[in-house]
Amino acid sequence: MSKRYFLATPPVGSRAVLEGDEARHVARVMRAKPGENLEVFDGTGRWWPATVTGIGRNEIGLELGDPVSEPDRDGPRLTVAVALPKGDRQRWLVEKLTELGVSRLVPLRTSRGVAEPTPAAVDRLRRGVVEACKQCGRCRLLEIAAAGTLESAAAGIPTGRRLLADRGGGPLLAAANSACDSLLVAVGPEGGFTAEEMAAAEAAGFARVSLGPHILRIETAAIAAASIAGQLPSPAPAG
Amino acid sequence: MSKRYFLATPPVGSRAVLEGDEARHVARVMRAKPGENLEVFDGTGRWWPATVTGIGRNEIGLELGDPVSEPDRDGPRLTVAVALPKGDRQRWLVEKLTELGVSRLVPLRTSRGVAEPTPAAVDRLRRGVVEACKQCGRCRLLEIAAAGTLESAAAGIPTGRRLLADRGGGPLLAAANSACDSLLVAVGPEGGFTAEEMAAAEAAGFARVSLGPHILRIETAAIAAASIAGQLPSPAPAG
Repeated sequence: MSKRYFLATPPVGSRAVLEGDEARHVARVMRAKPGENLEVFDGTGRWWPATVTGIGRNEIGLELGDPVSEPDRDGPRLTVAVALPKGDRQRWLVEKLTELGVSRLVPLRTSRGVAEPTPAAVDRLRRGVVEACKQCGRCRLLEIAAAGTLESAAAGIPTGRRLLADRGGGPLLAAANSACDSLLVAVGPEGGFTAEEMAAAEAAGFARVSLGPHILRIETAAIAAASIAGQLPSPAPAG
Repeated sequence: MSKRYFLATPPVGSRAVLEGDEARHVARVMRAKPGENLEVFDGTGRWWPATVTGIGRNEIGLELGDPVSEPDRDGPRLTVAVALPKGDRQRWLVEKLTELGVSRLVPLRTSRGVAEPTPAAVDRLRRGVVEACKQCGRCRLLEIAAAGTLESAAAGIPTGRRLLADRGGGPLLAAANSACDSLLVAVGPEGGFTAEEMAAAEAAGFARVSLGPHILRIETAAIAAASIAGQLPSPAPAG
């Protein structure tokens, strides 16, 4: 795969423009000239071969070839709802969840959470997603949802598919080893969910599942859940 | 769990001595006094409640209570053989593999590897294992084996249990979904194994398994393999 760049603005017909850091990288690091070939993706599951047509100070004009669609990956559409860890661990979390094909990340607001899902933090996560997509060849962005609670994260996920990482639960595989369309795994802060939060989770139909024998850090639990869910089968086609 | 410290030297009877950084932490950060209670582990699967009996410049004398054995974890004994990633990614790799219960890490010598498994690097990995054990409550150290090849890493692992991460393979779960005592997953460098290395792996009975839909970084693949293998069942007891 040649170097791939992210189109923040969707193409218009067969024309597109790279902006910001992406444009500066093409101009200054890659030192591209008009006529140079590269690949671009818009985060919705498509990529295009592209030819540089113009080089401006902060934008690169492109002529696009035919779009190529990324095949849907196997298995359920996975949402990971997680109390954000601190600092560099956030960047790791997003990089790994992107590589592992997670569909949606919901930053959880919890009583014992140590990192606020501020707009600036969410912006950083989104930039991390784009970088990871470029690295791992993924064309559909991991969606960083608005921060929420366990209940709001579970909206749209069937009751039997709402899981919560807890060392006291059974293996995730045993709880989710049949084909399904969507799956949610929630990971609490290092201090754990409070009794009130656990009661709310139980009321919302979350089942406890174990992801390993030891005390897992937040990002380890989330990455383990993504890894395991990535091995689950797809539902059989209807009809 | 109270703060746990690592005994680099095995106890003699009910007496033990903490040394080096562990001793300095107890003395200077924890500001422990004689009579203070803490927990120690020696990396072989046991921990002890302990009482401080003496505080020296670089060592802490301890009187130990009865040892407590960590129960064996479920599932196969997992070896991960991996071409080491660079820099901070090594520390992450070891931290996560320790948390996830991997038994043994073999640094792989490969043609396209970017980080040499030097004695200094292996020492750093071992220190990382101890720190991760303290963090996650694990009492048996992840073994950092001598650097080797795919063939040497596979010694003692039955042929059907030698797996190699490759996007072209089937899901790891499908290849290893029956109970087994031991399992080996090999992860190559970012540039991949060479044709010669792949041929040698095939000759040594390695089967290719997929860990996810996209191009995984080394440490992501290793962590994913550990997460998935951690969900596998234990063999039924003999007899």
